[in-house]
Amino acid sequence: MDHAGDGMDLFFTPDTCALASLIVCYDAGLDITLTPISFAKGAQKDEAYLAVNPKARVPALRFGPDILTETPAILAYLAQIAPEAALAPSDPMEFAQAQSFNAYLCSTVHVAHAHRMRGSRWVDGEAHLEALRRKVPQSVAHAFTYIEEHALRGPFVLGERYSICDPYLFTLANWMEGDGVDPAQFPRITAHRNQMAQRATVRRALAVEAEVRAALA
Amino acid sequence: MDHAGDGMDLFFTPDTCALASLIVCYDAGLDITLTPISFAKGAQKDEAYLAVNPKARVPALRFGPDILTETPAILAYLAQIAPEAALAPSDPMEFAQAQSFNAYLCSTVHVAHAHRMRGSRWVDGEAHLEALRRKVPQSVAHAFTYIEEHALRGPFVLGERYSICDPYLFTLANWMEGDGVDPAQFPRITAHRNQMAQRATVRRALAVEAEVRAALA
Repeated sequence: MDHAGDGMDLFFTPDTCALASLIVCYDAGLDITLTPISFAKGAQKDEAYLAVNPKARVPALRFGPDILTETPAILAYLAQIAPEAALAPSDPMEFAQAQSFNAYLCSTVHVAHAHRMRGSRWVDGEAHLEALRRKVPQSVAHAFTYIEEHALRGPFVLGERYSICDPYLFTLANWMEGDGVDPAQFPRITAHRNQMAQRATVRRALAVEAEVRAALA
Repeated sequence: MDHAGDGMDLFFTPDTCALASLIVCYDAGLDITLTPISFAKGAQKDEAYLAVNPKARVPALRFGPDILTETPAILAYLAQIAPEAALAPSDPMEFAQAQSFNAYLCSTVHVAHAHRMRGSRWVDGEAHLEALRRKVPQSVAHAFTYIEEHALRGPFVLGERYSICDPYLFTLANWMEGDGVDPAQFPRITAHRNQMAQRATVRRALAVEAEVRAALA
């Protein structure tokens, strides 16, 4: 393979939304280097990593002098540099709908989830943090209800065609149980999860994530 | 003018992030129709509007049979259908950096702000809502510190060139005072705000917003 994307580093932490970028790297056929960042050890706040991403978050994609952050931007970029993989629509309105879906995931679904583990971003005090955690099953379910009823066309997010929306939905939908949400409420999202879990690039990414998780433990 | 974007409806509420889309419509030279949605009257939850946007939020852009939601998606779409206005970079990495910036605005800056007015998305109970509001000056300032120090290249977000990132930053940065954040802490963002406020399309959008605000009152 001789891709524009080779020579890329993906800064990665298991059990975060960085999984979506890893899957799309494999979908795009890119030979990336994975750099694990241990959240358990607080490595996202090490000086070396803050020089990569001052936001102290993952994922971050480094390619030569450029560093790219934020999952929707990384996914669309990977699709764009590997056009033969056809991971994003070329029609402007269809591409916009893909972007809209991914923006909803980052601004609403992921945010609702984050109130369980990272509530200290928005409130101080254990009683208030606990109150945030109590609401997570409801706010996460509310966001997935919108996706189930309106946004997931099926079988893939955009319909018949696999795209950068699918690994991102798969990644966040896998957090449901941990957030106290019963996936059985969402048969279409559950069918999507099951179908995604069978894909070769997803299985490869999950296996690599498991290796990184073990190495960081 | 004979643009692909003519015949579009923008569903709009004053004092929301919909202002960014309105500015970019004018930047793109699109002759849109503005449909005001009164949040004060709860019109975002009327059946008619839920048929447009089941998320009960603004903005939404309607173009023929298509409805597009989420500000980053709308802004990139408007740039794409009006290429002569050059509102988004064509280089893939530069476009990705624009997307990254807008994703940060929607997922972090706007979310931090929303904890003041819309905390009931994430918590129940007045004492807990008040605790969320107390933290807003800190969480909003934290997000703008990242922008001030790392993301706003100056004079425009992407450097010398105006883009879809600028009206979005302008819109959210104007909320600082209401969120209890002193803009004087952020001289580069303040310079950007002042420069933006002089632009013809921004002044036009602010004037139209004021008319809509008065009509809805």
